Amino acid sequence: MFTMLRINTATGATKTETFSTKEYLLGGRTLSSRLVGREVPATCDPLGRHNKLFFCTGALAGTAVSSSDRLSIGGKSPLTGGIKESNAGGIVGVRMARQGLRCIALEDAPASDAGWKIIVIGKDKTELVDGEFLAGVGVYEKSEMLTGRFGKKAGCMTIGPTAEKLLLATGIACSDPHGVCSRYAGRGGLGAVMASKKIIAMVILDDGEVKPEFIDQDVFKAGAKNIVNLLKANPVSTKFTKYGTAAMVDICQALKVLPTRNFRHGVMDGAEKINAQTMYDTIKARGGEGQTQHACMNPCAIQCSNVYPDKDGKLLCSPIEYETMALMGSNLCLQDLDAIAVMNRIANDAGVDTLDVGAAIGVAMEAGLAEFGDTAAAVRLMEEVRNLTPLGRILASGCKIAAKVLGVRHAPHVLGQAIPAYEPRGTKGMAMTYLSSPMGADHTFGFTLRDEEVPTSKEGKVGLSKKFQVIGSRMDAMGMCNFVRYSVQNDMKPLLGLIQSLHGVEIGEVEFDDFVKETLRIEHQFNLDAGITAKDYRFCETFYEEAQPETGEKMDITDEESLLARQW
Amino acid sequence: MFTMLRINTATGATKTETFSTKEYLLGGRTLSSRLVGREVPATCDPLGRHNKLFFCTGALAGTAVSSSDRLSIGGKSPLTGGIKESNAGGIVGVRMARQGLRCIALEDAPASDAGWKIIVIGKDKTELVDGEFLAGVGVYEKSEMLTGRFGKKAGCMTIGPTAEKLLLATGIACSDPHGVCSRYAGRGGLGAVMASKKIIAMVILDDGEVKPEFIDQDVFKAGAKNIVNLLKANPVSTKFTKYGTAAMVDICQALKVLPTRNFRHGVMDGAEKINAQTMYDTIKARGGEGQTQHACMNPCAIQCSNVYPDKDGKLLCSPIEYETMALMGSNLCLQDLDAIAVMNRIANDAGVDTLDVGAAIGVAMEAGLAEFGDTAAAVRLMEEVRNLTPLGRILASGCKIAAKVLGVRHAPHVLGQAIPAYEPRGTKGMAMTYLSSPMGADHTFGFTLRDEEVPTSKEGKVGLSKKFQVIGSRMDAMGMCNFVRYSVQNDMKPLLGLIQSLHGVEIGEVEFDDFVKETLRIEHQFNLDAGITAKDYRFCETFYEEAQPETGEKMDITDEESLLARQW
Repeated sequence: MFTMLRINTATGATKTETFSTKEYLLGGRTLSSRLVGREVPATCDPLGRHNKLFFCTGALAGTAVSSSDRLSIGGKSPLTGGIKESNAGGIVGVRMARQGLRCIALEDAPASDAGWKIIVIGKDKTELVDGEFLAGVGVYEKSEMLTGRFGKKAGCMTIGPTAEKLLLATGIACSDPHGVCSRYAGRGGLGAVMASKKIIAMVILDDGEVKPEFIDQDVFKAGAKNIVNLLKANPVSTKFTKYGTAAMVDICQALKVLPTRNFRHGVMDGAEKINAQTMYDTIKARGGEGQTQHACMNPCAIQCSNVYPDKDGKLLCSPIEYETMALMGSNLCLQDLDAIAVMNRIANDAGVDTLDVGAAIGVAMEAGLAEFGDTAAAVRLMEEVRNLTPLGRILASGCKIAAKVLGVRHAPHVLGQAIPAYEPRGTKGMAMTYLSSPMGADHTFGFTLRDEEVPTSKEGKVGLSKKFQVIGSRMDAMGMCNFVRYSVQNDMKPLLGLIQSLHGVEIGEVEFDDFVKETLRIEHQFNLDAGITAKDYRFCETFYEEAQPETGEKMDITDEESLLARQW
Repeated sequence: MFTMLRINTATGATKTETFSTKEYLLGGRTLSSRLVGREVPATCDPLGRHNKLFFCTGALAGTAVSSSDRLSIGGKSPLTGGIKESNAGGIVGVRMARQGLRCIALEDAPASDAGWKIIVIGKDKTELVDGEFLAGVGVYEKSEMLTGRFGKKAGCMTIGPTAEKLLLATGIACSDPHGVCSRYAGRGGLGAVMASKKIIAMVILDDGEVKPEFIDQDVFKAGAKNIVNLLKANPVSTKFTKYGTAAMVDICQALKVLPTRNFRHGVMDGAEKINAQTMYDTIKARGGEGQTQHACMNPCAIQCSNVYPDKDGKLLCSPIEYETMALMGSNLCLQDLDAIAVMNRIANDAGVDTLDVGAAIGVAMEAGLAEFGDTAAAVRLMEEVRNLTPLGRILASGCKIAAKVLGVRHAPHVLGQAIPAYEPRGTKGMAMTYLSSPMGADHTFGFTLRDEEVPTSKEGKVGLSKKFQVIGSRMDAMGMCNFVRYSVQNDMKPLLGLIQSLHGVEIGEVEFDDFVKETLRIEHQFNLDAGITAKDYRFCETFYEEAQPETGEKMDITDEESLLARQW
């Protein structure tokens, strides 16, 4: 039996329900998207009382299986106007599992001038307590205030000052093993949704005692060990172990798809100054609190995270991801890891997504508000975000709105969500994926880049994107970290076997993929019901009209092709 | 034969074509919407090279018929994403007629960093000349520079500094009989479209000599006189003669639909301080350049315009319309006509629509950026617009975007275009019209307010709105001023007879209405092709959830009902 805790944010009333269906068993995106599809009116105002937020753990949450505590957060996105599942690492998943919770639902909304509340969930009770003291405070300080009150082991989620103002490019920050809320469900504006319900933080106390009840513990233990072996044998995940996602800088530069100068180019001179090796060497040289091979959750055999220290060895930002290095680095022509780390830290503190805001700053630079390559100006723009100035609010609204307000036509987004760190004209597989995701431009969804024979050609990319849409979605579908996919992409039996030995429920590979595909169908249907049509799944016109200089390529994917890639 | 002048703004090439079809004969919106529907790809970027701008005169342009020189400007709107026809008074229509032009089409677009050009159209030639000297200059100063160079009788169109920056709530200003570009095709962002083509002004020289060639001049003269008699006998148009559109303040206050406090209320205490009588008395008392009963074009028997003078009798703003008095007055809780006039003047100088920016300021006040009722703060916000500060750019993007960036849910718009000066929960007829217009919320389209027995009830409003959609659209359909409609709404024969005696073409009342309805079908089809669905023709959720205090009414029109009102 799996437990759902419903919290009415207007009345404070709570209700628990239990279910034994496979959608609750799988949890993760399987569950969150079904609940959104079933319970959220597709045309509702994402910031109104009809939207809901679902926080779902996955099938193996709370066990010793590597990378299994991912938290899926679902709702209607104010950024895209469509369905959203954004997931995060950190320790919230395991805390929910210890409290015996598969899902927490935030429902309804109080009046907009109601006071801020913190939801506190403990072993025997759920309370809404005063949260006014957190208002306007940055996420780092909020983390300290929360852990000071609820303990470092509590699973905390909070939002930044930008989300409190209902800005669209804002996420929900989840606490890491050190008690710092730095693991973001960053995309799609779910921070603003949480704010619209006047919930400034949610805390899962460390007093939960629910333990997994294994059907066959020995088989499970062997299976969990097998996952570790698979991860350690896989060249991609082992590279992540050493370098983290930063390994992508060199790969993308070589493929000419490193977003540069507001996605005008795919190559940046001096990219080696912000690549994985430079980051690795810098962290090692500075020592102190700096750390490579860092885990966002325990257990994890990949440990792709890092702690980037300042010159004195003090923690500056953790983690810095490739996506941020591209969107807040190369995309702005910045060749300075320290500046990127400072911007990343400010973004985390302000509560915004580094991709959407990085892309917005690129747009602002193209509008002439700062020079490309000017690190001081870029940091100043992030300070405007943190200080909620009018310009900061524009940037915290994401690149689509920033482009409209700043008069820039080349706006790198799909469905209002910024394009991730792979310039789409140079990789038609990723472009197809961007145009296929019900979430707006998204790279974790159908990551084709490593498997494209001719990246600049669209031939065969419908099929390739769909293949990897399934492979990527499988991880979300059961709350596993996306990076496990490399180790199981040809064989899901190791993970499905773990489900069986834990829950005693057999889910075959075909049945599992049916769940994955049905999730996609539900998500696309939600978007259609919300008024998002085939005309909306497009890049802005400039991508079709202007060639990317390094590859000579324009966007050439048609509406008909991308529609095929969205049909399941 | 009717002449179309095509100008390629990228190459400077021009081409003339002649046509003798009835769509060219009728001109106005009949022609502009057909050309947009036929030649503009519905999904194109409104600010890209595939959009076009069509400037169309009407069937009786250049004749002595009252109010017949209205200019229809058509294109794809960057504000709504759908089709747009925005029309203006002034002297451009007659100048085009004198040059023998039914339509001027601006096509293609140069690179965004190309220099600004002025299009100069004279008797024998069309030239693109340097317009860089106009860049960044306000519209009043631009007017002086243009008339200084091309004469006060030239028909000039220009855009403001906000449009130069491609902001969305920007219009195209047309010169009035005094040579001042103060007659705005204000709605839908066509100023930004003109800017995207790097055309900063278009001038129709006063050297045209084409005169109407009447089929039956005596009949025509008698018919023209008949129109004057009809206008002078009609109580609505005669009231407009004395008071202008300001007469609506008292009517709307009485009906509890005067937009107040960001469309939260329908009644403003102190509305009499900004009503028609106060304006009339102020203008009369100050004297000087002040003028009631002022004509925006010659000939006009209505003369609804005015010249509002400052305390020293100098022209402050001409005209001030009811829509502005509501959106920049009561909607901001301002009870000060002088402040409204100053804001209106700044808006005209900056090149923005007073409705969309007034609504955006209402949103900004709700966001706490200024107090409702604070005239100095309201004027300061307009100065931010004029000075193109980040906040000014937010406001010049219209209320939909302003609401997103400023975190306000109650955004008074439909399809991104601000709701005009009739609070929709209190008048379900106007609400139905707002939800039915292919142009975004629009009041000239289907003006039901004077004919609603129970304004707060939606019963019968599909039919009532459709009735007045046709009545209003008839005027646009042939380039007549909308205010003629009161005099001919039950009998179009006087106007159709004028067409026959001028052009020798008989168009019956049924055939004419078929043109009107076909125009609406074309416009709705364009929007559908552009990706605008029934889900988009809605007010924001707060109108459905929160009652307007004075009437106790919520919005209750369903998607199905408004869809019926859009079907022709």
